Amino acid sequence: MSYSPLLVRLIDALCCMPGVGRKSAQRIAFHLLERDREGARVLGDALGQAAQGIGHCKRCRMFTEAEFCSFCAADGRDRALLCVVESPADVMAVEDATGYRGLYFVLMGHLSPLDGIGPDELGADQLEALLNENETKELIIATNPTVEGDATAHYLAGLAARHGVQASRIAHGVPLGGELEYVDGGTLSHAFFGRRVVD
Amino acid sequence: MSYSPLLVRLIDALCCMPGVGRKSAQRIAFHLLERDREGARVLGDALGQAAQGIGHCKRCRMFTEAEFCSFCAADGRDRALLCVVESPADVMAVEDATGYRGLYFVLMGHLSPLDGIGPDELGADQLEALLNENETKELIIATNPTVEGDATAHYLAGLAARHGVQASRIAHGVPLGGELEYVDGGTLSHAFFGRRVVD
Repeated sequence: MSYSPLLVRLIDALCCMPGVGRKSAQRIAFHLLERDREGARVLGDALGQAAQGIGHCKRCRMFTEAEFCSFCAADGRDRALLCVVESPADVMAVEDATGYRGLYFVLMGHLSPLDGIGPDELGADQLEALLNENETKELIIATNPTVEGDATAHYLAGLAARHGVQASRIAHGVPLGGELEYVDGGTLSHAFFGRRVVD
Repeated sequence: MSYSPLLVRLIDALCCMPGVGRKSAQRIAFHLLERDREGARVLGDALGQAAQGIGHCKRCRMFTEAEFCSFCAADGRDRALLCVVESPADVMAVEDATGYRGLYFVLMGHLSPLDGIGPDELGADQLEALLNENETKELIIATNPTVEGDATAHYLAGLAARHGVQASRIAHGVPLGGELEYVDGGTLSHAFFGRRVVD
């Protein structure tokens, strides 16, 4: 004996989401069926349309259903600056926090040879094509401060050098509001040796 | 600047799931778009069909797209026994663990006057109609061992008494495999005063 076929199918399908196991899938299914059918219907539509319609920006690889994303299509952004990030969420983080108004390039991942992710999978061709347009003056590398992110940054710096574009990397160090006592050793060491003259 | 309209819509819609905030919704959306479009499509269909098709069993209120759920429709189940539970997940828990082969009644909640949930919302009418059919000999009350579950159990016991049906409640006590030292006081006290003669 088990749930009805449609319910079994719904619970199975919900398990495709990251971090959702069978118990969570059940809980979500019951919640939607019992308390929010309209939400379930809207979500179902949104998923179908997104899976169908959303592709990548031809220029920067950002998710978009248009040919170019809203950043690349916008007038008045500084086309001399190109910020390379790992994921679309990083674009939003940089955009919201920094006041940066240049363009972006989204790798959709980081170099990870063991997983078969090399430069081709990260859109290196597209990035080179962009650099060949000679608009870019500075490549701002904002990959994550992880081993893979560092390797990716190293690769990107080499790419920029080959195209005669200046590369920079966002600063790593002690985060604001933290206490030195509780900052991990690697970060503290990095911050210490990366100290800057106070002027 | 923000994500493309379809992506914004998808992230908003994902937030309707319990336990999913904006960050999780983003993560889920990116995962599905980047790695599992087929899963997204299947989930979208499943949600739409479930929201459209799944209703409640006319007899026991279990979720089903048919008129009667597979339990009520099955031949060979013991119609003299009726086990009352709070949720569809509880039906599966009892079914899988106990070898019980009677029928079920799913309250879809528990008495909670502050939330406006009284006997009517829990399908008391349907339960009374079932008891009036005179098939039921024992009403097994398997509501959760919580304050609301206890109140609901008390109400159900009264209902059974009015219909001349014997009511029983699943035993509460120390769970198997636990150590007394770590069992909470309430449970231990309950187990102690509910001790049974060893024969």
